[in-house]
Amino acid sequence: MILILKDHPDPNQLENLENWLTSMGLTLHESQGENHLILGLVGDTSAVDIDLVKALDIVQDVRRIQEPYKKANRKFHPLPTVSSVGDVQVGGGAFAVFAGPGAVESEEQIHRLAGLVKQAGADVLTAGAFLSRTSPYAFSGLGVSALRQLSAAGKAAGIATASELTDLRTLDAFEEIDGVILGPGNMTNTALLKALGATNKCVILCRGLSSTVEEWLMSAEYLLSGGNENVVLCDQGVRGFDSACRLAADLSSVPLAHMLTHLPVMYAPSMATGRQELAAPLGLAAAAAGADGVWLTCHDDPEHALFAGGESLTPAALSTLVQDMRRVRKAGEA
Amino acid sequence: MILILKDHPDPNQLENLENWLTSMGLTLHESQGENHLILGLVGDTSAVDIDLVKALDIVQDVRRIQEPYKKANRKFHPLPTVSSVGDVQVGGGAFAVFAGPGAVESEEQIHRLAGLVKQAGADVLTAGAFLSRTSPYAFSGLGVSALRQLSAAGKAAGIATASELTDLRTLDAFEEIDGVILGPGNMTNTALLKALGATNKCVILCRGLSSTVEEWLMSAEYLLSGGNENVVLCDQGVRGFDSACRLAADLSSVPLAHMLTHLPVMYAPSMATGRQELAAPLGLAAAAAGADGVWLTCHDDPEHALFAGGESLTPAALSTLVQDMRRVRKAGEA
Amino acid sequence: MILILKDHPDPNQLENLENWLTSMGLTLHESQGENHLILGLVGDTSAVDIDLVKALDIVQDVRRIQEPYKKANRKFHPLPTVSSVGDVQVGGGAFAVFAGPGAVESEEQIHRLAGLVKQAGADVLTAGAFLSRTSPYAFSGLGVSALRQLSAAGKAAGIATASELTDLRTLDAFEEIDGVILGPGNMTNTALLKALGATNKCVILCRGLSSTVEEWLMSAEYLLSGGNENVVLCDQGVRGFDSACRLAADLSSVPLAHMLTHLPVMYAPSMATGRQELAAPLGLAAAAAGADGVWLTCHDDPEHALFAGGESLTPAALSTLVQDMRRVRKAGEA
Amino acid sequence: MILILKDHPDPNQLENLENWLTSMGLTLHESQGENHLILGLVGDTSAVDIDLVKALDIVQDVRRIQEPYKKANRKFHPLPTVSSVGDVQVGGGAFAVFAGPGAVESEEQIHRLAGLVKQAGADVLTAGAFLSRTSPYAFSGLGVSALRQLSAAGKAAGIATASELTDLRTLDAFEEIDGVILGPGNMTNTALLKALGATNKCVILCRGLSSTVEEWLMSAEYLLSGGNENVVLCDQGVRGFDSACRLAADLSSVPLAHMLTHLPVMYAPSMATGRQELAAPLGLAAAAAGADGVWLTCHDDPEHALFAGGESLTPAALSTLVQDMRRVRKAGEA
Repeated sequence: MILILKDHPDPNQLENLENWLTSMGLTLHESQGENHLILGLVGDTSAVDIDLVKALDIVQDVRRIQEPYKKANRKFHPLPTVSSVGDVQVGGGAFAVFAGPGAVESEEQIHRLAGLVKQAGADVLTAGAFLSRTSPYAFSGLGVSALRQLSAAGKAAGIATASELTDLRTLDAFEEIDGVILGPGNMTNTALLKALGATNKCVILCRGLSSTVEEWLMSAEYLLSGGNENVVLCDQGVRGFDSACRLAADLSSVPLAHMLTHLPVMYAPSMATGRQELAAPLGLAAAAAGADGVWLTCHDDPEHALFAGGESLTPAALSTLVQDMRRVRKAGEA
Repeated sequence: MILILKDHPDPNQLENLENWLTSMGLTLHESQGENHLILGLVGDTSAVDIDLVKALDIVQDVRRIQEPYKKANRKFHPLPTVSSVGDVQVGGGAFAVFAGPGAVESEEQIHRLAGLVKQAGADVLTAGAFLSRTSPYAFSGLGVSALRQLSAAGKAAGIATASELTDLRTLDAFEEIDGVILGPGNMTNTALLKALGATNKCVILCRGLSSTVEEWLMSAEYLLSGGNENVVLCDQGVRGFDSACRLAADLSSVPLAHMLTHLPVMYAPSMATGRQELAAPLGLAAAAAGADGVWLTCHDDPEHALFAGGESLTPAALSTLVQDMRRVRKAGEA
Repeated sequence: MILILKDHPDPNQLENLENWLTSMGLTLHESQGENHLILGLVGDTSAVDIDLVKALDIVQDVRRIQEPYKKANRKFHPLPTVSSVGDVQVGGGAFAVFAGPGAVESEEQIHRLAGLVKQAGADVLTAGAFLSRTSPYAFSGLGVSALRQLSAAGKAAGIATASELTDLRTLDAFEEIDGVILGPGNMTNTALLKALGATNKCVILCRGLSSTVEEWLMSAEYLLSGGNENVVLCDQGVRGFDSACRLAADLSSVPLAHMLTHLPVMYAPSMATGRQELAAPLGLAAAAAGADGVWLTCHDDPEHALFAGGESLTPAALSTLVQDMRRVRKAGEA
Repeated sequence: MILILKDHPDPNQLENLENWLTSMGLTLHESQGENHLILGLVGDTSAVDIDLVKALDIVQDVRRIQEPYKKANRKFHPLPTVSSVGDVQVGGGAFAVFAGPGAVESEEQIHRLAGLVKQAGADVLTAGAFLSRTSPYAFSGLGVSALRQLSAAGKAAGIATASELTDLRTLDAFEEIDGVILGPGNMTNTALLKALGATNKCVILCRGLSSTVEEWLMSAEYLLSGGNENVVLCDQGVRGFDSACRLAADLSSVPLAHMLTHLPVMYAPSMATGRQELAAPLGLAAAAAGADGVWLTCHDDPEHALFAGGESLTPAALSTLVQDMRRVRKAGEA
């Protein structure tokens, strides 16, 4: 960490500052710039509150040198982590396809879709039991019973399962579900992060709609520092200014996150665009950009889906896309 | 709601669509545009899933006419709501000042600040017990005991209190706290919204960092439709592209929300800018724009604050600002 | 266009409005919603000022149905346009690679790079003569002589050329340059758009940093309506909130623009990310998403480049990437 | 400027880097952090290309310490600059009101509005002669003759005038106009900036829709370094994600710019919000935040305005607002 001091700092204040920093076990290097005295802090600066230091009267600016995440940092863990959703591996070379309807609608529906999605080439079946809806009047999922039906459908079809957790009190109900999805609205929900960090459940950690890649990795750090290393990052799109699509599909997060962390990184084109006709080209793009997998919405009757119909691919479209993505991935690597 | 159909819709699909809409209790008005057949839907369209309709093969676009919030809608409730944090009224003409340190640091600290903040002219004392920190390694608040200390300090000084709730399991600990703050990261936390909707606790509902004003009002709708009408909206700033400030302080949300809803609307300049030297001018701006109050961070020793020191005004600066804001507010109204 | 009127409109105002609209040659369809009277306007609404109508006392809201661009609209021109930069075709199936250094630095440099870039598989050599720099103290290009050198270098190496126009007064100097680039800062420069619309020069129209896809197509409409149909769209990235990359690489613009317009659509990964290590994965992603080409920055000595060194691929890296992109493109199409 | 080197830099590369930096007249200070060697550069770093340095193989990151603007920098010029539009002073304590219709529509109209706007308390009459319209089919202004009419109307009414310049070739026609407005789309138009920097014309430099405050000051630096110090900054709003308003009205730019530069800073609430009912509260907010003035759109018949009717205040509303803003400004200062 580097502190840039204001011109002509008060000597007493400077001495106080230096004493305080030294008392935190840091070594200081002074260097005099043309207009500014600069203090370099050597040692473990993770306990230094950057905003606090900025607020000091004699400090003009503070620049961090070290990334604030440690366990998620590729620098200290160069090999890619391979996470596991049931027996499906994500990261380290494979290309995982998560797919399913926006919501479990009935036992029959999820059993039918489990088969269709598996047949289309997907590795993990996803379906919502607890939906984060903008409107209190909208269908919000069938709850715990939907988790039971999802798990049973996955087992019957021989496909791993994942679903979104929105409330700590229902964590136990995910026992038979292979992957717990933390949606973008819960990326900074520290209560959920801490609870999941204490399990060995695979967590698919979605990027918040206005979270930087660094903030996303800090949320992963909550999980890792809690002891859970079975983590998959998934970008669902970020808030942008063009209302033609639901969100902005900034794919640079995929290679950027790969540079910064060893964790696997997926992309969710259906959620990002909100439009099934854009999900396919963005799925191909994510595969080409090196994503470790994609998460797609799929329904065999989108027009009557209870949730997320507009972004849902049919099983036939999914099947074609899965083949195309795998071919593109291979072509990009060759 | 208006449906714009694609050119030359298939007559069977059109009939199916019309039957389906009619079966939902809606009346249809067809009108033929130059290139498009347009269907106007009359009746209660709140159950119609707009994304689903957009996904229909013969539909080109859908335009909503009615706002999706009802109980929060000023149209159906023209008089301003006055909410109450303890015996402090927010909305309807008064200008409420919430202020306090980022966190309760000790019993002594919060008792001291309760007196200082009250003396500076604030109406409600705020202080964090559960902090939503980006880093798992940062100080995250003293928890339940901090709530007890905050409540006692407020009572001793004769000032109402409010603090942020981040985890449903601690809701009971807020019994002696007058206002429950839902931070920007929890604006869409439907589990918390539903739980708080079932209480009569005053909820200060912060705007999410990338939430539109409409989405913010939809979160308020969760509370109101749950039966809790004691709601205060508070904008803490939104994510912007200029890293010179923590967030973008888009003050148009204040008059815009006032047009759309009857609920009181506050602004939080310290959190929005992250810099104490910008908090004062933004506080004046919020008062001039008609905000029903502001929420400011205040600490008597910002340099040693355990949280949010960089954005903290001293009690003396707060006192001056409170007087200036009240004068500005009056000048703007006259 | 649809007008949603306020509740209980004043009958005189309504009559005035209807007379005014009728006088513009429009036919009106009234339909009564539950709370609102709705007016559908049939006819040529392109002359109706949507902001003006919104401002009318009795109008609550206005919704446009027709896209505001005509000549750029795929609806009226379903086949893809193939534009030509010299004898290089862009659009309609081919995948064009534009590449070159940020700036012409000397006659020797651009001759050398012309050969290297062509050898690496690029179709068009690009290099700046007039640079839009943020700082008035930065190198701003060698001007008209650089255009001459670029043109000569391209001819010597047998590769088409393109360069950015920033000032109308230098338009004549582009005579020997095959493509004129309008950078993102000039997308809404109507003086340049009108001047170029009156030529038959190929225009590579970059998307503005905060322009919606619709606004981008409106700028293309300036060119097309001026009579110049030799247009290539190129997205260079848009402004986002994460400072880890220069811009946000929202690739959904590529398939979205393809749906809306017949014009070819390219992507510029070097400019969007500002980092050469991210340019390659984003180039592959753009190819997979169906882009008609990419524009990349290439320099054989990035460390000593006078401009854009940080985003420059070496010729060897370019060569590998070009092959990978062509392979990915084919894999995505198959 | 500080360079953070990668771990274990190659000694030859390091020597090359140090020689190169020294050859630019810079002195180097090495300091060894825990994981990184850090080089502090002392001397005039304005010629160092930060992107280029970042691209070097052994450099991990670069941090700038000095702001890149010099002549616009408050640090080197602590007293506020007072600029002059005709005989109207902007900055240094006064509160200037610029107002007028979106466009000159006719000689009669602008003469009428000159009187009304002056009577309402405005200091400068503005009206467009050259409009930057999104659509090539929209009314784009009456051109040079409109400038003549504006100038004559201002002189007849005894009010200074300003209008937007969009094309260098018409600069001469602004001779009788007191202030030249550079709109947000031309903030980075270096051809216009250089041309205006060579005049002594007052330039009202609007902030680009996605420009940071620093980029805005760099555009001002073009003017100042060209020799023209008669500059007024004006923020018209920036691109945001909520389509309820035209732009985001992030008022923190006003106090932030005041901290960073000595130039006067205005705000344009009508353009930022696009809605006349929001212009008034935002005008009050700008006054309270310390703006040196505001720019408002005003028309006596908004419903029939040829441009910008939706954001136009009537003269009566303007008159009230001007009084309210002046009162608020005084209350905020007291």
